[in-house]
Amino acid sequence: MSAFDQKKAFILELIGLTSLEVPDSSPKGTIDSLCLPIINVINAHPDMVTTSLCSGRVSVFLEGMKKADTQIGAKGNEGRWLFVTHHPEELPNWYDQVDFVYEEPRPTEDSQRFILFKFEPLILHVKCRDLDTANLLYSTAMGCGFRESGIGSNNIVGIRISIKLDTPIGYLHDEKLVSIVAKSYLELITKLSLDRFTENFRKMESLTRAIELMGKPQKVQVVESKEERRLRKMKEGMARRESVREEKEKKRREKELQNQ
Amino acid sequence: MSAFDQKKAFILELIGLTSLEVPDSSPKGTIDSLCLPIINVINAHPDMVTTSLCSGRVSVFLEGMKKADTQIGAKGNEGRWLFVTHHPEELPNWYDQVDFVYEEPRPTEDSQRFILFKFEPLILHVKCRDLDTANLLYSTAMGCGFRESGIGSNNIVGIRISIKLDTPIGYLHDEKLVSIVAKSYLELITKLSLDRFTENFRKMESLTRAIELMGKPQKVQVVESKEERRLRKMKEGMARRESVREEKEKKRREKELQNQ
Repeated sequence: MSAFDQKKAFILELIGLTSLEVPDSSPKGTIDSLCLPIINVINAHPDMVTTSLCSGRVSVFLEGMKKADTQIGAKGNEGRWLFVTHHPEELPNWYDQVDFVYEEPRPTEDSQRFILFKFEPLILHVKCRDLDTANLLYSTAMGCGFRESGIGSNNIVGIRISIKLDTPIGYLHDEKLVSIVAKSYLELITKLSLDRFTENFRKMESLTRAIELMGKPQKVQVVESKEERRLRKMKEGMARRESVREEKEKKRREKELQNQ
Repeated sequence: MSAFDQKKAFILELIGLTSLEVPDSSPKGTIDSLCLPIINVINAHPDMVTTSLCSGRVSVFLEGMKKADTQIGAKGNEGRWLFVTHHPEELPNWYDQVDFVYEEPRPTEDSQRFILFKFEPLILHVKCRDLDTANLLYSTAMGCGFRESGIGSNNIVGIRISIKLDTPIGYLHDEKLVSIVAKSYLELITKLSLDRFTENFRKMESLTRAIELMGKPQKVQVVESKEERRLRKMKEGMARRESVREEKEKKRREKELQNQ
């Protein structure tokens, strides 16, 4: 068994085990059912296996406490999700589930912990057996509009697209979750996220179909070299002359038979 | 001259020609001066050449008119930039240059053309002579935190990071540019963009330094094989015995001279 096949068998076993009791490392803890068609198509291919995948989601995130070297929007230091969903039907009126206070924005301090509303599209990583497969998968993804895709180390292809929203909607103030935008604005970005979900799922479906076709043998157009053409023409000529000769011989024999 | 060297010479000539009179295909039309250090470091490397680059920017964009198959935020059909800058110092009070009407958001239609405020970080594409160079550049970029990087076709490395803002701030209504967020909100996302510019330039500098070191020969730790060690020890022993012999010989001669 090659190293790739071992790795693939191991990953497939892990995917099989993942459930609510044995969560994986994602915030959701289980594989999103919306991903199953594309996961199945990829893993049915002998030279590919999915290593991570998110079908697309809306998240509302409260940044962690900032240190001098902390990245913008970092998860560390008590950063937490206020709302996450992969399912558009769970999106309407999400803001009523969060204990928001609506206020006008006031001047902010450097240590301010912002609340960010994000739409993140499909992202997936696929380990391929070899560079040829990785290159083919990369071109397939680019052809479907996943223009931020690329091949990383160990023939892992990252498939990315830039349908995004990344909007600050509030901050933490005196332990309160302050929304600095009107509820009508939250309604509007919710509507825009629904549009993005639709676009995202359309792209995911077109990618799934394209990857499915990758495994199938394509019609190959035979291109003939000069020498091959010469030999073919020669053979055709010989066959033609042979059939003319046979025709003549047949007629000659018929004549002989008539004359007998 | 190899195909890579020809391509590199051609690109370097184009970069040299680009000016306000002969613009390139970017909205700005010329190469951003903030990119020059990283462009120079990359192009000084014999096996790399930059093919496209944006140092990071804030843009405010009015979407084009939508058709059934038009992508979200598409440029076609009269989409236009209301404001663009690569320079943080041009950012404060940018909204006073746009003829905004401030209104509460109202329910929107599917054909609505939104105004999107975006912070986009550094992105660059580098063509490499071979896959080894592409792999090395990819690892260097990932090591500097450019986690959305990847290798595309023809050994072109895309270097990407996800410091972003992508915020709808208004729409076109009755030919008017309506801001659906308060001016204080525009001030706030401007402040957040300035923070992102700072983070972005820090990342760009660290990438520039790391790429500079790629070209330099590293200190190589010599690893000795068993046979090499045996030969070295033998030589060292011979040299030691020789110097002992010489020392003895010298003393003997001195004694002889004293005895004469």
